[in-house]
Amino acid sequence: MNKAQRGLLFKKLSKLASAAKVASRVLATLSAEKKNSVLAGMADALSANMDAILAANAQDLKNAKKKGLSQAFIERLTLTDKRINEMAQSLREIATLDDPVGRQIRSWTRPNGLSISKVSVPIGTILIIYESRPNVTSDCIGLCFKSGNAVILRGGSDAICSNQAIFAILEKIVLAAGLPKCVITLVKEIDRRAVDILLSLDQYIDLVMPRGGESLIKEVREKSKIPVIKHYKGICHVFVDESADFAMAQRIILNAKIQRPAVCNAMETLLVHEKIAKDFLPTMIEALQDARVEIRGDSATRKLVKGLKCATVEDWSTEYLDLILSVKVVKTVDEAIAHINHYGSNHSDTIVTQDNECADKFLKEVDSACVYVNASTRFTDGYQFGFGAEIGISTDKLHARGPMGLEELTTYKYVIRGSGQIRE
Amino acid sequence: MNKAQRGLLFKKLSKLASAAKVASRVLATLSAEKKNSVLAGMADALSANMDAILAANAQDLKNAKKKGLSQAFIERLTLTDKRINEMAQSLREIATLDDPVGRQIRSWTRPNGLSISKVSVPIGTILIIYESRPNVTSDCIGLCFKSGNAVILRGGSDAICSNQAIFAILEKIVLAAGLPKCVITLVKEIDRRAVDILLSLDQYIDLVMPRGGESLIKEVREKSKIPVIKHYKGICHVFVDESADFAMAQRIILNAKIQRPAVCNAMETLLVHEKIAKDFLPTMIEALQDARVEIRGDSATRKLVKGLKCATVEDWSTEYLDLILSVKVVKTVDEAIAHINHYGSNHSDTIVTQDNECADKFLKEVDSACVYVNASTRFTDGYQFGFGAEIGISTDKLHARGPMGLEELTTYKYVIRGSGQIRE
Repeated sequence: MNKAQRGLLFKKLSKLASAAKVASRVLATLSAEKKNSVLAGMADALSANMDAILAANAQDLKNAKKKGLSQAFIERLTLTDKRINEMAQSLREIATLDDPVGRQIRSWTRPNGLSISKVSVPIGTILIIYESRPNVTSDCIGLCFKSGNAVILRGGSDAICSNQAIFAILEKIVLAAGLPKCVITLVKEIDRRAVDILLSLDQYIDLVMPRGGESLIKEVREKSKIPVIKHYKGICHVFVDESADFAMAQRIILNAKIQRPAVCNAMETLLVHEKIAKDFLPTMIEALQDARVEIRGDSATRKLVKGLKCATVEDWSTEYLDLILSVKVVKTVDEAIAHINHYGSNHSDTIVTQDNECADKFLKEVDSACVYVNASTRFTDGYQFGFGAEIGISTDKLHARGPMGLEELTTYKYVIRGSGQIRE
Repeated sequence: MNKAQRGLLFKKLSKLASAAKVASRVLATLSAEKKNSVLAGMADALSANMDAILAANAQDLKNAKKKGLSQAFIERLTLTDKRINEMAQSLREIATLDDPVGRQIRSWTRPNGLSISKVSVPIGTILIIYESRPNVTSDCIGLCFKSGNAVILRGGSDAICSNQAIFAILEKIVLAAGLPKCVITLVKEIDRRAVDILLSLDQYIDLVMPRGGESLIKEVREKSKIPVIKHYKGICHVFVDESADFAMAQRIILNAKIQRPAVCNAMETLLVHEKIAKDFLPTMIEALQDARVEIRGDSATRKLVKGLKCATVEDWSTEYLDLILSVKVVKTVDEAIAHINHYGSNHSDTIVTQDNECADKFLKEVDSACVYVNASTRFTDGYQFGFGAEIGISTDKLHARGPMGLEELTTYKYVIRGSGQIRE
């Protein structure tokens, strides 16, 4: 790409982002009824155009196989009747949720008679950069639309045909509803420089959410002039305190590790209080091994259970996303908390204990988005929290932390009503 | 600075930021009583050490005069007994405010019995980069300390002696209270590369707030890997609708423009509905001119009042911070809203109107942190809002918007209590 071509690409993407910003102002004022009827229309259109989506997806799959992409990748890329119906169903469910825009968060009156309301409003324009899953296209359009935000989507190049097919179907519904074209946008330029340009357009784009692997997240964070909310890693811990109910601890640990090991809220490290390690760990490790979990232990663990692999310093900060677990014996709850705050990813951590004081200490001092007592880390999820939807889980601390539903896709403004007040 | 020196500086600043992060965890668990007693001690120490502060300030003033810095700059840099007492008083007032940490924002129980609470917690480590005013040093220490955040201060090099003197006095109180040294930190390296290094340390620093001129803000936004909350510009508008009460409009306009023209919430552009322009503008402009305000008008305004300067496109997006006002006649409330959203800075904007429908439209569609009906823009201020304190005004949309008090210096975590729940 030469300088002139880069200039053209910049111009094109600026125009697109600027149009999205203008469109966002229209979207921000739509009634809940209007938004919900468009969402229902989108859902119906996905169901009605299944063949077109499947044909486009077949093209992506053919290209992926030609490129020799991994089986796991191809699995994520594959659409079926069932998956498309789920996408449509998800849009219908979003339509049933409360409108997150226009909520009065707080209101008060000042001594001078000014009435101040803090009211929820859409963020504006949101850029979502994601990897291969094509269902993200319709999910993100649904969530951003419902929360009144214009969305600019930049999907992975290997899903480009599927994404374009889904997008074209949904865009038709937007246009038929008389809305500006750019309330939803799919960036069709697959050149990676398009991402660099988009990340510089902070005059038009209010938020960027990267969804994908560690290298994508890092790249976006380093290049972006636009505020970023990201899900970095899920290095989740379960700490079994000396007062724990062993049966409960075992149930929680097996669930947190095994139920779905490849997701971010699965457990990666088990910490056990030294006072119960001898009684608890051998049986626990046997149960995990029976479930085909590979155990990597610190020296104390390896003394209690022979034949385990050694956990290195790297293990403590590795997100396995697999049937692997690192295990460490700690002397105190303080040591457990310090370990989690040092090696964890501020995601989700559990203490299993019958001691309330110890639980409170853990809940207060562990610096993670979700801190649990006596429950599986697997509950960190917008649906499990009762949000009705989820656009992601933030491991950041600003604006949104933990599971992000519709409410987290809004910001606020202050609305102040007076009767001629001036400042003395 | 050669490579080895840069390496040393990086090492030094990383160590400092890492220590601040560790210290922040101690600060996060302090009781309100403990924090308030430390704040009171800080206030007393400022009053008791006035001479040392004034001596250090005299050194800064001497250097500033030698460098030929402007009178306005020197005025901002100058400390007096009165200003130091105000700094102390401000710390005492912060001590009287409610603790923003540990508030239960929301709580609910899921059908499976999990009890979820959304609880406010400190953000962690906050970096504040500011220009010459030395009172910012103690104000920011007070606000961050009360909200449980470790703070790293990087003040302007021309105030370095004053800042160090104030800091040393406050640090003594922190240490005497048995707290870790790095709950408050002043960066003493005046080399500009120190800022670049600090802005890369996102593993230790959770938030950066630049306070100063446009070039500082831009530099921080472009270089920072850490999330930024900034006050960019205050291009505030008053729109006088056709149904406005003229006397009220005139009172609000004079207040918004004249009461303190050099601050961000002062008005920079006046928009007037064409239906009343002929009746309203000549008297209004005369009153403004009587108060020595220079008027720059669009062509319609200049037809109504002869001898005015012409407002150019640049004027619409200029923050004068001075006794200058640009004036434009608009055809509709929609044109006023579009003008504000296009040229404004999302700060504070007012409509003067007796028409409720028109007011609601303006409040809903103007995309600013603070939108007013029938009141002066000058009320955009943490104290005027009743927050009791203010660390700044955000023109950003994420995390905090508008006046930022103690609450805006916190984030939240989810605390989930179970009785052995696992995910099915």
